[in-house]
Amino acid sequence: MTIGVLGAGQLGRMLALAGYPLGLDFLFLDREAGTPAHQVAPSLLGSFTDPALLGQLAERCSVITFDWENVPSEALDQLEARAKIAPPRVALATAQDRLLEKALFAQLRIPTNRTQAVDSHADLQRAVRDIGLPAVLKTRRLGYDGKGQQVLRKAADIDKAWRELGGVPLLYELHVPFDYEVSAIAVRGQRGEFAMYPLNRNLHKDGILRLTRAPWKSPTLEAAARRYLRKVMDHFDYVGVLTIEFFVCRGRLLANEMAPRVHNSGHWTIEGAVTSQFENHLRAIAGLPLGSTAARGHSAMLNLIGSMPAQQALLAEPGLHLHDYGKAARPGRKLGHLTIVEATARAADIRAARLLRRIESRKI
Amino acid sequence: MTIGVLGAGQLGRMLALAGYPLGLDFLFLDREAGTPAHQVAPSLLGSFTDPALLGQLAERCSVITFDWENVPSEALDQLEARAKIAPPRVALATAQDRLLEKALFAQLRIPTNRTQAVDSHADLQRAVRDIGLPAVLKTRRLGYDGKGQQVLRKAADIDKAWRELGGVPLLYELHVPFDYEVSAIAVRGQRGEFAMYPLNRNLHKDGILRLTRAPWKSPTLEAAARRYLRKVMDHFDYVGVLTIEFFVCRGRLLANEMAPRVHNSGHWTIEGAVTSQFENHLRAIAGLPLGSTAARGHSAMLNLIGSMPAQQALLAEPGLHLHDYGKAARPGRKLGHLTIVEATARAADIRAARLLRRIESRKI
Repeated sequence: MTIGVLGAGQLGRMLALAGYPLGLDFLFLDREAGTPAHQVAPSLLGSFTDPALLGQLAERCSVITFDWENVPSEALDQLEARAKIAPPRVALATAQDRLLEKALFAQLRIPTNRTQAVDSHADLQRAVRDIGLPAVLKTRRLGYDGKGQQVLRKAADIDKAWRELGGVPLLYELHVPFDYEVSAIAVRGQRGEFAMYPLNRNLHKDGILRLTRAPWKSPTLEAAARRYLRKVMDHFDYVGVLTIEFFVCRGRLLANEMAPRVHNSGHWTIEGAVTSQFENHLRAIAGLPLGSTAARGHSAMLNLIGSMPAQQALLAEPGLHLHDYGKAARPGRKLGHLTIVEATARAADIRAARLLRRIESRKI
Repeated sequence: MTIGVLGAGQLGRMLALAGYPLGLDFLFLDREAGTPAHQVAPSLLGSFTDPALLGQLAERCSVITFDWENVPSEALDQLEARAKIAPPRVALATAQDRLLEKALFAQLRIPTNRTQAVDSHADLQRAVRDIGLPAVLKTRRLGYDGKGQQVLRKAADIDKAWRELGGVPLLYELHVPFDYEVSAIAVRGQRGEFAMYPLNRNLHKDGILRLTRAPWKSPTLEAAARRYLRKVMDHFDYVGVLTIEFFVCRGRLLANEMAPRVHNSGHWTIEGAVTSQFENHLRAIAGLPLGSTAARGHSAMLNLIGSMPAQQALLAEPGLHLHDYGKAARPGRKLGHLTIVEATARAADIRAARLLRRIESRKI
């Protein structure tokens, strides 16, 4: 069975590496050669909306999935009649627009922070009045890793925020003081089977995920997350892996955003869970039984951002698992990640903190 | 860094899948397209002794290794002056000839069963007289998975055995009644660093490995195996992974044969050890620090031979890890393997026995 993938980044690369042992083949589509996935699997090169390339993809693949959420809807329009697409494109469309996403959370009674659509300077002034400050003004579409966001702390910030972002559909969100961030990753199969991984606790820096620890043990939060993911996935009759990021505010979850795909905060599952998120995504979209989402030990995952530490020093760390995405270094770019698995959460925390310090001070 | 690999079978495939996360690239050489490794990595197609192809391999690769031991020595003659080869070719030459292998064991005082070279019918009669019966007559070269072997139980078997195998250099080996078989897999780095995996206990059927359980806990046997592997690897100034298969006879190890490469009995290390044998082989030959060989839980590995069980039924088994090599089915052919990892040796044994029964009776 050949799996088609729109986008050939590191998520696609890790999908292919998880899928080969299942006997799956892959065909990627991306704009340029030499992408992380193209280094390990065949790739069609060209525009995401090229009818000839999409035709090839539809013809050669049993099911088509994506490794990023900004896939143009024209591509899916063309594919829809000719190929099976998973996860469902309505889930993708919802995740592509922060307003639809928030509306869905509200509709399904999943707690989220207060938001309002902003299409004009007057809308922004009204939102500041209605919802209050501090808040974040975000583009409704195409933002990621903290890009396309402006923080407003006082009324005087309105003009600057509007100058930076105005002109495209925006969303105004109350900034809720949160204690920490977690994410929940679940997989749903073609017959509605559902399995969720243990919660991840995430540390962001400059809008980019830096460190994930899992399992984050909190039975109450986990039960709530399970309820919310199940609601969203059942709503879409979802097939594949879905992630929701939450703020934790005084012991309650507030849904922040969802990703209709495998997620950076789930990379620890490669070594730290019985079945990785990548394998489970593939099992789901290929119509195979889901694998166990149970954790193996206590994991910490660190992103390698902007530059790669020296491999000799990294691999000298006992039990460290390196994942190099094969990308050229560039400031702010995710080039790879590390995972360590320890017997206790405390041991994983201590090692992760030490590794993070050594990497940030360039001692590795 | 690009790793060149002579032979593109399932071992090569698993090397590539283990090497991509380290940021390594691969280039294989094999006679035909569509091999297990070629499905996941670029491959040069043609004869192992083609000067142009070997030239390309030497030019494009930092180090050249092999995924089988029957690489023609002409290929290595051509490569030697132009490329780094690991493991060392003298280890390969020794493993290619059962007589040299036995002589090495004797030289290093590693216990092995009594053997004698046989090049004529008269030699065979003499060997039966000198060494006794029952015994096994084997080709000195090119045998694997029980091929090229004849068992002699009585003097009357001499003629038949000679008819079947005579004409090529042979080896006569006393058949020692053994209690069971184990194998030991170790890795040695470029600066002489050495690490051994826990012992594997192996079950063969019709000369082909069927089931491996690891770790096989026996401190005495493990200490002896460690001594023997260290001796062999130091002798060759070895770089990479090496395997020795042993018979266990009344609590003692008898070396049976060695393989200068990753080994079927080490496939459990993908999920069942901190660092897989494939990753450690690559770390060694690429000059990187070795990874931990510690076990994670208790593993059982089953070979899938001749035909593939239905994937739906297999993957419905909780916690089962499937490795499909992407090969066409053919009687006696290794098409893939399964690994399960359990918290106790007993649980792994019970599950493995049940899985083996179900696969052999085609209930899966």
